[in-house]
Amino acid sequence: MSSAFAAHFGINNIPYGVASSSKRPTPQCVTRIENDVIFLTELSSKGILDGITDYEGLGKIFYEGSLNAFAALPKDIHARVRSAIQATYREARGKLNECVEHIDNVQMHLPVQIGDFSDFSGSINHMGNMSEVITGKRTIGPMFHKFPPVYAGRSSSIYTSGTPVTRPLGQSFEDFTAPEKGIIFGPCQILDYELEVGAIIGRPVEPGSMLHAKDADERIFGVVLVNDWSARDIQVCEMTPLGPFNGKNFATTISPWIITLEALKPYEVPAPTRSVGVTEFLDDPNSANYKIDLEVEVIRNGRSTKVCNVNFDTMHWTLRQMLAHHTIGGCGLRTGDLIATGTVSGVGEKEHGCLMELTKGGRKPFALTDGSELSFLEDGDIVQFTGALDDGVGFGECIGQVRPASKYSRSN
Amino acid sequence: MSSAFAAHFGINNIPYGVASSSKRPTPQCVTRIENDVIFLTELSSKGILDGITDYEGLGKIFYEGSLNAFAALPKDIHARVRSAIQATYREARGKLNECVEHIDNVQMHLPVQIGDFSDFSGSINHMGNMSEVITGKRTIGPMFHKFPPVYAGRSSSIYTSGTPVTRPLGQSFEDFTAPEKGIIFGPCQILDYELEVGAIIGRPVEPGSMLHAKDADERIFGVVLVNDWSARDIQVCEMTPLGPFNGKNFATTISPWIITLEALKPYEVPAPTRSVGVTEFLDDPNSANYKIDLEVEVIRNGRSTKVCNVNFDTMHWTLRQMLAHHTIGGCGLRTGDLIATGTVSGVGEKEHGCLMELTKGGRKPFALTDGSELSFLEDGDIVQFTGALDDGVGFGECIGQVRPASKYSRSN
Repeated sequence: MSSAFAAHFGINNIPYGVASSSKRPTPQCVTRIENDVIFLTELSSKGILDGITDYEGLGKIFYEGSLNAFAALPKDIHARVRSAIQATYREARGKLNECVEHIDNVQMHLPVQIGDFSDFSGSINHMGNMSEVITGKRTIGPMFHKFPPVYAGRSSSIYTSGTPVTRPLGQSFEDFTAPEKGIIFGPCQILDYELEVGAIIGRPVEPGSMLHAKDADERIFGVVLVNDWSARDIQVCEMTPLGPFNGKNFATTISPWIITLEALKPYEVPAPTRSVGVTEFLDDPNSANYKIDLEVEVIRNGRSTKVCNVNFDTMHWTLRQMLAHHTIGGCGLRTGDLIATGTVSGVGEKEHGCLMELTKGGRKPFALTDGSELSFLEDGDIVQFTGALDDGVGFGECIGQVRPASKYSRSN
Repeated sequence: MSSAFAAHFGINNIPYGVASSSKRPTPQCVTRIENDVIFLTELSSKGILDGITDYEGLGKIFYEGSLNAFAALPKDIHARVRSAIQATYREARGKLNECVEHIDNVQMHLPVQIGDFSDFSGSINHMGNMSEVITGKRTIGPMFHKFPPVYAGRSSSIYTSGTPVTRPLGQSFEDFTAPEKGIIFGPCQILDYELEVGAIIGRPVEPGSMLHAKDADERIFGVVLVNDWSARDIQVCEMTPLGPFNGKNFATTISPWIITLEALKPYEVPAPTRSVGVTEFLDDPNSANYKIDLEVEVIRNGRSTKVCNVNFDTMHWTLRQMLAHHTIGGCGLRTGDLIATGTVSGVGEKEHGCLMELTKGGRKPFALTDGSELSFLEDGDIVQFTGALDDGVGFGECIGQVRPASKYSRSN
């Protein structure tokens, strides 16, 4: 599957991940060029990274089962490691032969140990689209213009691309449109995905060190795709007043490759202009998004249908502003923390980052290429997100298949 | 300070914590009897725990900087360790001399590494009291009777008792009662505490293993006091629709001693009867709380005022039900996770677990013994929670002092 995305991993990407294989059963840090997965401890042992840093032991920290120790290093170290890998690949490719396995022969793991997961809602189009679906009117709450809405997610339920997602059980309204009919318990009936992008924290933000939006890139190691699977019926029932919990905490899928900000930098584009001014710490004179071409495919009965194509440049709130808002009260950020953007949506019919928007809450099913109709996710459906920039830089895929709900039985 | 609570730590308590001292600079696992802090690795090296378990290396896991490895062991191991400590203290106290330091000579640390923190709202009285303060009417949402409301908190901001709490900065309504006047940025103006109890997960719940409420005690290692510090002005501004975030994520304080369920068992009391039936997985025929006498003191200008005294037996939703609700969708729980109950309140004026309730949103200040008035927390105020059962079993204190807000400056 993964080898289909070789074009995303050109020499200008140099992403980071954690992989194992039958030859190398211990999960360890890797990069990828086209379909070559390069094991970084072994690369280091060839002397290729010598002299890059006063920090001892790059080879050792690449042998850890997560990228946290590497991500926490200063950005100039990251830059020099990247350059050394690129130079070796261009000029002395033979040196890499012993450190490489084909992508199809490796197993990818969660790239970082994630301490806390925060999920924002930074797309004004998503807010408008959802409001239209639920209330019939396109309204944006006045607070949305002042700071990005956000809730804390579940870090223990974050899985790597490829992990199946079991349909959750839960309590929900018997009739979504008539709450007074009461509550039922059973498998989720309205299972959805949310197309998101997430920042992985690099150098930590100490508690009490408030970030200004314009400085926040310094703390982002890189970016992944995120599927914030959502059980809408369970979620609707619990949202007031404390926000989503069981509607979200059964599974979140992230893509296995962290694309560094250095790789994304050439694709920086100005964020959309805003109609309402923001307070000082959120005011970023060079407020920027990245031109990431995001796609969602639903694969049913072996046939794929593209259901969404939206660009990340539509985001109202930027990742930098999300980090600033997150830390302004004194909350620290730890290396490896995941800060997701919320559903990325445009205004067009093909730019809807979740099924609630695309199928208007299930009222307007979408025709799939296998001849069936998509209202919400059915058991067996596969959801695949991809994200690509130009010139051989992309995210590969973020994928998951829906498994039937477990029969409820007492556990002990 | 801590030595004042010797009476909480009788021979029937045997709590667990993590401590260091000038003699023993490496934080490690301890228990406490009266004012004696007993270092468990050293206790183990005396042979006192020999033969308790097939699990090798109790002495080694007690030398770790957290209780996670010990907490994950089966309950019968915990029971035998507890009995061995009690027997030695009663019958061969001299053996302990070399393993002991006075409580005043040790530094307590976070007792566990907390992966995720979930904060419920399980008190029907808190819901009613808050509703009355905010809307003038005592209403309980219909969902409250079906499952306990809950949000995900911030695990990186959990601190041990004694850690100062810096007043957070944030955006809030210029006028709490007139949102249309707009948003301002600055130090929190309405700083509050929330008196809570929290369960620390022992044996983990694997993702997809749904707990029934009646089996959930098996997964609780023990219980701590929790202060869920709340910036009410920041919180009000962000609550709709995603719940609390910056209003809570600057600090949560927990008591350093984990009181095991075994120590609490004799104080189990039936939970209040409920007016509405619950679905199967929440239906616990022996639904129980613990008879914990909880107190809140505010210390201002060196003078202490008791502002709340409420019993934990008032809780509508039990810890067991909270764990069941948390896992029903397939969400796993990891050893060390913190599951807090939300504010514990009664209906009486002296039973209010937060200042929003006690001072009616600040409209009815409370007279402190230093002659000043308490509306919300001022810089320098110390908040101390205590929790006691009978017969020498209690939590000691959970304490924190409010520090002035930082001047906002760009961090980098």
